[in-house]
Amino acid sequence: MSNIRIAIAGYGNLGKGVELAIRQNPDTELVSVFTRRDPASVQLLTDHVPVYRLEDAEKHQNEIDVLIICGGSATDLPTQTPALAKYFNVIDSFDTHARIPEHFANVDKAAKENHHLAMISLGWDPGLFSLNRVYAESILPNGKTYTFWGKGVSQGHSDAIRRVEGVKKGIQYTCPIPSAIEAVRSGSQPELSTREKHERVCYIVAEEGADKAKIESEIKNMKNYFDEYNTTVNFISEEEFNANHTTLPHGGFVIRSGKTGADAATNQTIEYSLKLESNPEFTASVLIAYARALTRLKAEGAEGCKTAFDIAPGYLSPLSPEELRAKML
Amino acid sequence: MSNIRIAIAGYGNLGKGVELAIRQNPDTELVSVFTRRDPASVQLLTDHVPVYRLEDAEKHQNEIDVLIICGGSATDLPTQTPALAKYFNVIDSFDTHARIPEHFANVDKAAKENHHLAMISLGWDPGLFSLNRVYAESILPNGKTYTFWGKGVSQGHSDAIRRVEGVKKGIQYTCPIPSAIEAVRSGSQPELSTREKHERVCYIVAEEGADKAKIESEIKNMKNYFDEYNTTVNFISEEEFNANHTTLPHGGFVIRSGKTGADAATNQTIEYSLKLESNPEFTASVLIAYARALTRLKAEGAEGCKTAFDIAPGYLSPLSPEELRAKML
Repeated sequence: MSNIRIAIAGYGNLGKGVELAIRQNPDTELVSVFTRRDPASVQLLTDHVPVYRLEDAEKHQNEIDVLIICGGSATDLPTQTPALAKYFNVIDSFDTHARIPEHFANVDKAAKENHHLAMISLGWDPGLFSLNRVYAESILPNGKTYTFWGKGVSQGHSDAIRRVEGVKKGIQYTCPIPSAIEAVRSGSQPELSTREKHERVCYIVAEEGADKAKIESEIKNMKNYFDEYNTTVNFISEEEFNANHTTLPHGGFVIRSGKTGADAATNQTIEYSLKLESNPEFTASVLIAYARALTRLKAEGAEGCKTAFDIAPGYLSPLSPEELRAKML
Repeated sequence: MSNIRIAIAGYGNLGKGVELAIRQNPDTELVSVFTRRDPASVQLLTDHVPVYRLEDAEKHQNEIDVLIICGGSATDLPTQTPALAKYFNVIDSFDTHARIPEHFANVDKAAKENHHLAMISLGWDPGLFSLNRVYAESILPNGKTYTFWGKGVSQGHSDAIRRVEGVKKGIQYTCPIPSAIEAVRSGSQPELSTREKHERVCYIVAEEGADKAKIESEIKNMKNYFDEYNTTVNFISEEEFNANHTTLPHGGFVIRSGKTGADAATNQTIEYSLKLESNPEFTASVLIAYARALTRLKAEGAEGCKTAFDIAPGYLSPLSPEELRAKML
């Protein structure tokens, strides 16, 4: 069988992660990259792969099996994914939970009208965490599900602190509170407030002469971002920042605490967790596994938009159904 | 929509678990139980549900949407599941890993010839653990997967120690070794021997006057069961045994330790774990979720045999695809 021909739209952290993930999957191949920048300014890690203008993507539709769209959820993906689903089978990692139904409808329409297959909102949350919520709640209907995020870098919160006056560099880590996780694991099904589940830890390089007390206060009281959390603000040197705070770790926990039995008194706990040294490299690895699933489902005649809920796990594996049953069951 | 009409074949611990799980799922209904015992001797927890002889099952085929077969994997399921797949859509929890391909072929043939749908080897291992191995290895192809079981009761090992002369009552717990789990979580991808991964802990009530040293030695040196493990044998009173050792807890961990990135130097860890106070009640809860999936797939025209790898997660949930996208993604 020939390789799955993959193209990337948008060459940022996630796009680079996709490029790297393709190298770990010998049944996949990177055929091109599309960018809104000047293609000549984009230096890939891989030799001999062409970089094209995103606006010219349509011309390359016959060269590509799956286009992985690596734009941002706020403004890029809501327009890019439906537009590109006209010409390609597409995958995205759209993660604005509240807008997923609307995004699904737009992508589904564009894909169906053009006999393409699209998969949206893949990655780990939404994605693997969502899957685990569905499996766990379907199996233990009597119970409570808890999601904890971190320890990891929240890019939205990091952007927010960098907008504060006097901040030269800044990064924000979302940290689950260990005692809250232990309470959940105990089976007691606690009610936990926002503040009791996570805390926020910031590392800031201040501009010379900046008012640190003012920066700290402004961050801690920032509405929607920090005011509902206990937040720690650490001021550090630029050297320390560059040495220790330039990667994008993340992760988290999905825990279902359920009860079974005649008196619903038997505790049953399902826990799924991720500890990721690189969020974009891991998310990209998820997208590549689903690109494999996409090509198989497309070959079976599937069209329209799908999410992780619609895709049987065996489709993600390079192994055949027979191999999976013999080796993995 | 009318309820999913479920029948149980074999009313032991797992069968009772299925009966209890049905009560937690309002879209399901227990319609009958089949037994090899005298039906008059079987007392269900549920009123007004008939108990029939297993050999009469065929007569009731029009009353049942899904038959959940709760026999043992060693001798019952290899014959029961193919035989009953002639008359019913069936689900089993066949767990002899090495014989799954053969069992699959037998069940697939019987089901296809009679236009039925069968799902085999469901539960948590095989089942949820298998799923997690496939998802994790598909996403992180460069890595190592570790499965730890316990702390939990191994029924096979408990049966084995009860066969030792002088043992009145006995139970065996399989215990993962915490330092091994920590080594795996660290990302170091250790090579672990059988002895380094698990230890075995037995609680024994000895017959009066029995030679305890001889019992202990016989257990510790038992081939295939104990000789490759560090085993602790505790002699306790019958009172203590009855107070503390009559439930069937279990659980375990599936951990994928993978590497991504340009130099494959980025550690990425996926961990799935279960902590179950009742193994049979939990396994039964898994079977009921798949009974729901079965009825939906059957309504779409599916036939033959399937495993957890073939079933998209959304089919397990009582929620519609629209609800799942809006609430769970």
